[in-house]
Amino acid sequence: MRAEIIAVGTELLLGQIVNTNAQYLSRGLAELGIDVYYQTVVGDNKERLMQAIGIARGRADLLVFTGGLGPTLDDLTRDALAEYVGRGIGLHEPTMEKIMNMFASRGGAFVESNRRQAMLIEGATPLRNDTGLAVGNALTVDGISYLLLPGPPREMKPMFDNDGSAWLKEQLGPSAALHSVMMKFAGIGESMLEDLLIDLIREQQDPTIAPYAKEGEVAVRVSTKATDADEAARKLEGTLVEIRRRTREYLYAEDDVPIEAAVVRMLTQQQRTLTLAESCTGGMLSGLVTTIPGSAVVYKGGIVSYSNEVKMKQLGVSRELLEGPGAPGAISAETAAVMAEGMRAAADSDFALSVTGNAGPSAAEDKPVGLVYVGLAERGGVTRVEKLQLSGDREGIRLRAAKRALYMLWQSLSGQG
Amino acid sequence: MRAEIIAVGTELLLGQIVNTNAQYLSRGLAELGIDVYYQTVVGDNKERLMQAIGIARGRADLLVFTGGLGPTLDDLTRDALAEYVGRGIGLHEPTMEKIMNMFASRGGAFVESNRRQAMLIEGATPLRNDTGLAVGNALTVDGISYLLLPGPPREMKPMFDNDGSAWLKEQLGPSAALHSVMMKFAGIGESMLEDLLIDLIREQQDPTIAPYAKEGEVAVRVSTKATDADEAARKLEGTLVEIRRRTREYLYAEDDVPIEAAVVRMLTQQQRTLTLAESCTGGMLSGLVTTIPGSAVVYKGGIVSYSNEVKMKQLGVSRELLEGPGAPGAISAETAAVMAEGMRAAADSDFALSVTGNAGPSAAEDKPVGLVYVGLAERGGVTRVEKLQLSGDREGIRLRAAKRALYMLWQSLSGQG
Repeated sequence: MRAEIIAVGTELLLGQIVNTNAQYLSRGLAELGIDVYYQTVVGDNKERLMQAIGIARGRADLLVFTGGLGPTLDDLTRDALAEYVGRGIGLHEPTMEKIMNMFASRGGAFVESNRRQAMLIEGATPLRNDTGLAVGNALTVDGISYLLLPGPPREMKPMFDNDGSAWLKEQLGPSAALHSVMMKFAGIGESMLEDLLIDLIREQQDPTIAPYAKEGEVAVRVSTKATDADEAARKLEGTLVEIRRRTREYLYAEDDVPIEAAVVRMLTQQQRTLTLAESCTGGMLSGLVTTIPGSAVVYKGGIVSYSNEVKMKQLGVSRELLEGPGAPGAISAETAAVMAEGMRAAADSDFALSVTGNAGPSAAEDKPVGLVYVGLAERGGVTRVEKLQLSGDREGIRLRAAKRALYMLWQSLSGQG
Repeated sequence: MRAEIIAVGTELLLGQIVNTNAQYLSRGLAELGIDVYYQTVVGDNKERLMQAIGIARGRADLLVFTGGLGPTLDDLTRDALAEYVGRGIGLHEPTMEKIMNMFASRGGAFVESNRRQAMLIEGATPLRNDTGLAVGNALTVDGISYLLLPGPPREMKPMFDNDGSAWLKEQLGPSAALHSVMMKFAGIGESMLEDLLIDLIREQQDPTIAPYAKEGEVAVRVSTKATDADEAARKLEGTLVEIRRRTREYLYAEDDVPIEAAVVRMLTQQQRTLTLAESCTGGMLSGLVTTIPGSAVVYKGGIVSYSNEVKMKQLGVSRELLEGPGAPGAISAETAAVMAEGMRAAADSDFALSVTGNAGPSAAEDKPVGLVYVGLAERGGVTRVEKLQLSGDREGIRLRAAKRALYMLWQSLSGQG
């Protein structure tokens, strides 16, 4: 099955929003074993939308639409497709009831245009919308399948994942779907990881091996087509074992979680606590850890020591270390070590991580942009400090420094430190 | 001029990356007064790429490509377009020299395939690449203009903003371009802001008024077409004055900066310092402030008091306030006030902001998800606390709480507190 994704909305063409829906759907379709050959974006204009449908019908046998199912006259996707395939439109009673109930419970007057959201193309299967009002449509006409999904991601995603995927699987029949394992790595760059796996990547046929890199993390997706999970596991096993053998010291998870989630999981299992002392990352590391629900159990808190004053007063870094000719300065291995040790002692945690460096845009203390020290203090253990020379812009340097600190902690927690 | 954006790359079709380039280019083209009617994504496949070119030529007079200018055999955009328009390809000597120099300085062996990045379609204008190797191409054939830009955003953006835009302006001649002012608001939601401006939005013709909302911030873009900045200023003035009059207490900037940048700017002007005490935002607020270059001058540091222990020890919150039956607890106005006051006193800063609340996913201290208190302590001033009931997911609640805290500080700094 060859698919084309058609996102409908003038706000996309004006650059007001990013087309994240296309990515989400592309990934989801790939997982179902459906190839996406084109993505198209077209505005809220019936003529141009119908032209886009015509072009897509000529080069795909599945058209997945997102956007244009709302209540306003700008929302044209359903009408345009119905006209294109020569079918009428009828009211989907359960959706209409839901809309009326919503208005009743809110106590507002029913606005007639909301009726549009309950409309279904003749013969189409309704797709449930658990997070909004507009009902989705799925239909096949003349051998071409159409999936109509809402535009707002919070409605589109669950509808695609639930009723949309189920309908697509029915169309595909018992054919093989894509099964994959996402292997996540830290402490290693994309090119170095590729070097370690280069022969596997070159010779890959089935399973396939696809490296990814984003937001300071590196991943490899290992995929195969199989009719069920057991068959998939058998086909994937050999490749997974070989990759594990070569990358043991960097492989922190075999599901798509960030390193902060892996670290919080291990701290929780080991019932150990963490504190953070941040200078150049300025709270970003703490922000990453606390994105993880349940982090409050293991993360006690931290100090952002952006000024030397706070480094001295709150973390016990001595003035001699920070100031005066010949002193190592705030951006130094010595300061990173004392920050971590001071933080750990002050809050009596099992671990403390520290980060100090220059994230740019200009030199500080005559130290180059990208020079960062990360420290790890451990109760009853030896304090470790790593020196990094990172490239990229301010945000990139901060993010990579934070991820590197989490990797140091992961090494200790997994007994590889 | 009607444009189509064609992003080339199989990684987009697999959903491995989001097509942020399309948004960036759409916005940039709109600012030049160029309408974008379609965005297309096609894989690294010459045949399908040439088909896409053919379709785009039939419905646009400017085709802007991104991706496919790199060194590998997968990078096909230049070759496909040259073949389509029947032109040869030649070496762009200055780019070739730059590539050779880069290899010489790195000390690595020159890889022949890199020569591809210095190739230019016959008669094309080269577009300088300050952040990478591949040279851009700009040319007009049979009344249709083509702009070829690299795929990596850090190369594409500066090339489009510099040589790309300049070349497009030449093609457009002295015609009117879009001039706009971005007005940024805090402390107000999108729908409330729309209510304040609804008659202006309904009756808008020239200038146009477009509301935006993203990442906890609300904006309005006021735009008009004009041949120069003076004419634009005259045409925009009346609308800007009226919007300012209605929104004074929320309007924090008339350029596209986040509230944290406005706050750092005002603190710097007023030579005042800030510290932060965060609970549920967990360092995110501090992370936002320190994204701003130069924030180190006014931001002394902060404490992430994720545990009650840290609240007591580092911020001087009393056990009676936090624990025991009938105590207000960590999520309370009282605790928010003491956190801010304790932080300010400990670091002797002019201001301290505090945030404590429940960002979810489940209730804490029997307090509902989304209940957040933000506090502001000021040297010699009265401590203020605001109670918020925020909706959304964990990240959304944290972000909106952080932005609200910054708004409180902005109010004080601008004399509206």
